[in-house]
Amino acid sequence: MFVHETTVRVRYAETDQMGYVYYGNYPQYYEVGRVETMRALGMSYKRLESEGVMLPVSNLTIKYIKPAYYDDLLTIRTTISTIPNIKIDFSYEIFNEKGILLNIGTTTLVFVDIKTGKISKAPSAMIEELSKYVN
Amino acid sequence: MFVHETTVRVRYAETDQMGYVYYGNYPQYYEVGRVETMRALGMSYKRLESEGVMLPVSNLTIKYIKPAYYDDLLTIRTTISTIPNIKIDFSYEIFNEKGILLNIGTTTLVFVDIKTGKISKAPSAMIEELSKYVN
Amino acid sequence: MFVHETTVRVRYAETDQMGYVYYGNYPQYYEVGRVETMRALGMSYKRLESEGVMLPVSNLTIKYIKPAYYDDLLTIRTTISTIPNIKIDFSYEIFNEKGILLNIGTTTLVFVDIKTGKISKAPSAMIEELSKYVN
Amino acid sequence: MFVHETTVRVRYAETDQMGYVYYGNYPQYYEVGRVETMRALGMSYKRLESEGVMLPVSNLTIKYIKPAYYDDLLTIRTTISTIPNIKIDFSYEIFNEKGILLNIGTTTLVFVDIKTGKISKAPSAMIEELSKYVN
Repeated sequence: MFVHETTVRVRYAETDQMGYVYYGNYPQYYEVGRVETMRALGMSYKRLESEGVMLPVSNLTIKYIKPAYYDDLLTIRTTISTIPNIKIDFSYEIFNEKGILLNIGTTTLVFVDIKTGKISKAPSAMIEELSKYVN
Repeated sequence: MFVHETTVRVRYAETDQMGYVYYGNYPQYYEVGRVETMRALGMSYKRLESEGVMLPVSNLTIKYIKPAYYDDLLTIRTTISTIPNIKIDFSYEIFNEKGILLNIGTTTLVFVDIKTGKISKAPSAMIEELSKYVN
Repeated sequence: MFVHETTVRVRYAETDQMGYVYYGNYPQYYEVGRVETMRALGMSYKRLESEGVMLPVSNLTIKYIKPAYYDDLLTIRTTISTIPNIKIDFSYEIFNEKGILLNIGTTTLVFVDIKTGKISKAPSAMIEELSKYVN
Repeated sequence: MFVHETTVRVRYAETDQMGYVYYGNYPQYYEVGRVETMRALGMSYKRLESEGVMLPVSNLTIKYIKPAYYDDLLTIRTTISTIPNIKIDFSYEIFNEKGILLNIGTTTLVFVDIKTGKISKAPSAMIEELSKYVN
């Protein structure tokens, strides 16, 4: 299991008139979580794309437990618990500053060769690196 | 079963550098779908809030099948297939102009009394209206 | 002068906790305004890009007069009042359903050749079409 | 003159199919800039609202010079150069990691009493604090 934590500060733009973070903004926070997780693993998503691989999302789930509010400093805990092959799974937990769990979610992303548009395998460097943490 | 269709035109803002609609923008399209569905049922979400009831989302799932592109005129087909009590379930299918199914999703929303912050029951007018369509 | 009107319905996502449309969402509405204006002139922005020309924004101004609210059906009035050469100017007025002017703005966009990355001239078809309306 | 710098990492969500940060996302970055500037001055925007004052934007200008790209770590330099009375002016410069100036902008915000909806004066604590830096 590889676990990584990063933070985001809630922007005014991200609230709605309920005074909550709009439910559709969490996928962006999850994106921040997985991008920083990949960077921590030494394989930035930016480099991946420049090497001809893109990672469109094929599946998203979110279970909303409590709202986040304006100016909250949120912690996104991102977990990879399986070795990717043609897909990679991330799970997410978002906590506020009091440590209260606000929501949990999952995404599945597919490795796609940018040139051919076809599904490809996870880069071997990524598999190797993750093998240190994930069984 | 109550089914309603509405359209949205993809904005440039909603694309990303893959050239696709960003995966995190579909929850907004789903919002458009359910808001217009409620309006078609004679109970606008705006009025609901002004009557003291809000509807935070408790659950979201999206299965992405094909991407949407800039300037696509998308059809959002929204379905209500059960009578709400303290929650209301919507399901969504998004199609492009060629009739190709791009993604499917679901949301669950909870009726909350704005004053007390407590979970409440669906307004009886809404249940009555939906009873004409849903068993 | 070429004037075109189109409408947008305010999404919940676009409000903030003040209960107003977030100030940073109007550039998206202006984008909707100019894209529909170009479509009405027979030269969709999508086609322009597919023909190798892109139009990055070089200048934006907005003067906010009154707020827009959730579910408002806004009218965006877009005006082109000069013939473009290497740049094109649009001005915008946004009105609510009561006809109240909410904000006014301007954008300048630059014609850029996608292949070379260099500034180019407005397509002659666009100049010809606009010459019917603009002196 | 009070000058404050903060950083934002460009999210994938914030790019568009040109491969640039969408022009309409910079107002959000400017928001981050001014919010952190106010926090550095000891008067968080969140607290201001909780004390009954809100700050809607009345004016925005942006001059776009060069694009920002995905994953860029941008520096937002925010400057306050006049003492606020019923309005407060911020100016912004955004730089990429190479120190290249990407855009410059300004916003004017108005102090409004949340209860009455009327224009009010800047809190005296804010004026006092700023008087240390601004003539």
